[in-house]
Amino acid sequence: MAAITVRNLTIGAGRPKICVPLTARTREELAQEAGRLKRTPWDLAEWRADCFDGLTKPGAVTETLSFLRESLGDRPLLFTIRTRAEGGNADPGSEAYRALTLTAAESGLADLIDAELSAGHETFSAVVQAAHARGAFVVGSRHDFNKTPAREELVESLCRMQDLGADLVKYAVMPQSARDVLTLFDATLTMRETRPGTPVITMSMGDLGVLSRLGGGLFGSCITFGTAGRASAPGQLPAETLEKILALLPELT
Amino acid sequence: MAAITVRNLTIGAGRPKICVPLTARTREELAQEAGRLKRTPWDLAEWRADCFDGLTKPGAVTETLSFLRESLGDRPLLFTIRTRAEGGNADPGSEAYRALTLTAAESGLADLIDAELSAGHETFSAVVQAAHARGAFVVGSRHDFNKTPAREELVESLCRMQDLGADLVKYAVMPQSARDVLTLFDATLTMRETRPGTPVITMSMGDLGVLSRLGGGLFGSCITFGTAGRASAPGQLPAETLEKILALLPELT
Repeated sequence: MAAITVRNLTIGAGRPKICVPLTARTREELAQEAGRLKRTPWDLAEWRADCFDGLTKPGAVTETLSFLRESLGDRPLLFTIRTRAEGGNADPGSEAYRALTLTAAESGLADLIDAELSAGHETFSAVVQAAHARGAFVVGSRHDFNKTPAREELVESLCRMQDLGADLVKYAVMPQSARDVLTLFDATLTMRETRPGTPVITMSMGDLGVLSRLGGGLFGSCITFGTAGRASAPGQLPAETLEKILALLPELT
Repeated sequence: MAAITVRNLTIGAGRPKICVPLTARTREELAQEAGRLKRTPWDLAEWRADCFDGLTKPGAVTETLSFLRESLGDRPLLFTIRTRAEGGNADPGSEAYRALTLTAAESGLADLIDAELSAGHETFSAVVQAAHARGAFVVGSRHDFNKTPAREELVESLCRMQDLGADLVKYAVMPQSARDVLTLFDATLTMRETRPGTPVITMSMGDLGVLSRLGGGLFGSCITFGTAGRASAPGQLPAETLEKILALLPELT
């Protein structure tokens, strides 16, 4: 399975890496969130910029990224604007989404940039180009907060993001049954078996999907999101709990 | 999903129940093992009689069962002779296997009696009849320490044991890949979806299968084996660890 190395972190081999979302509304809260990371295990952090007040003010993206870059030391930083349609707080389909994401990509301050497939192929590709020009990686992402699509549909979307140049591809879904959790596992493993070139991130959200956050690594999911404070999506467990359980499970080879 | 109640324990609803195997060779060791249960969480205990020296001596089965029955208080006791062909230590010959298992069933001292499908339909049915006559439940069991059969084959064996009168049906397999673990989950869930009448116990053994011991409950596995000392099969975790993780996962309804 192909792995990528971001700073000193290898994603896509070994145990799944723990990503802690930072969901603060203000710089002060963000400083507190970053401070809490000192007391928890984590491998990389995601700045959920859509939670931040005043994101669209001139300079807000780069100033906040600079601040985070310094706070996080040598661990990778993922920049994400999650739109409402995908479970976040930002307006979807806007020029602002594209402009702000490109600003983050062009700044070179984030190691990874989230690009939503729903932004459209043109915007998605522009983010890939801008990120790659600065040596940053792109996490192509798709979310379904209502249901779990069929296995073929999940695989197709993951492949499409891979084809559009994403370095990692992510799909988060909501299960309505245990069968849905199995479908998510199956899609993840199918990617690993048939398209081993790109690390995959998948999760089945909510209480019913908790097992995917613990054990998705067995089927090829290379990042699991855990909290050091507020959760950014339903079903997330504390990073500290995740780490203890991941240590019991076999590593990917 | 149908559940059964053994003493005060409901198996097949709520969280998976933790079964601790007792693998002592002597009465003294068995007393120590039973003593260790005081310091660990457990729901039921399995006496792996095939590990016991002198099992075939006259009176050994009933005397040891009486001793365990008293040691365990009001928690259920499962009597098991695991033959070598199924990963155990006993090679009593089919007549002795049948005689010893029937002795345990007829004693009324064990709440549950393991019956290996490989013993043959005639012996299996005789054990069912003897156990039911004393109000005991039968765990029909099958093991594959080399591989994971196809989903249809797993389901077929589980159904056959159900048809032969087992109250719970168990299949333990060895995975050679993550796909094999998924196959085990799928077979378990298929049983729950299509044959909800009988609680199912499944596990994927070894390091690769550890996730099934933690999360098999999501797909319908109602008992997970955990240790309070020696493991009786590869991949078993301490019961204490199991309990903490089971508390994070959703309960079966």
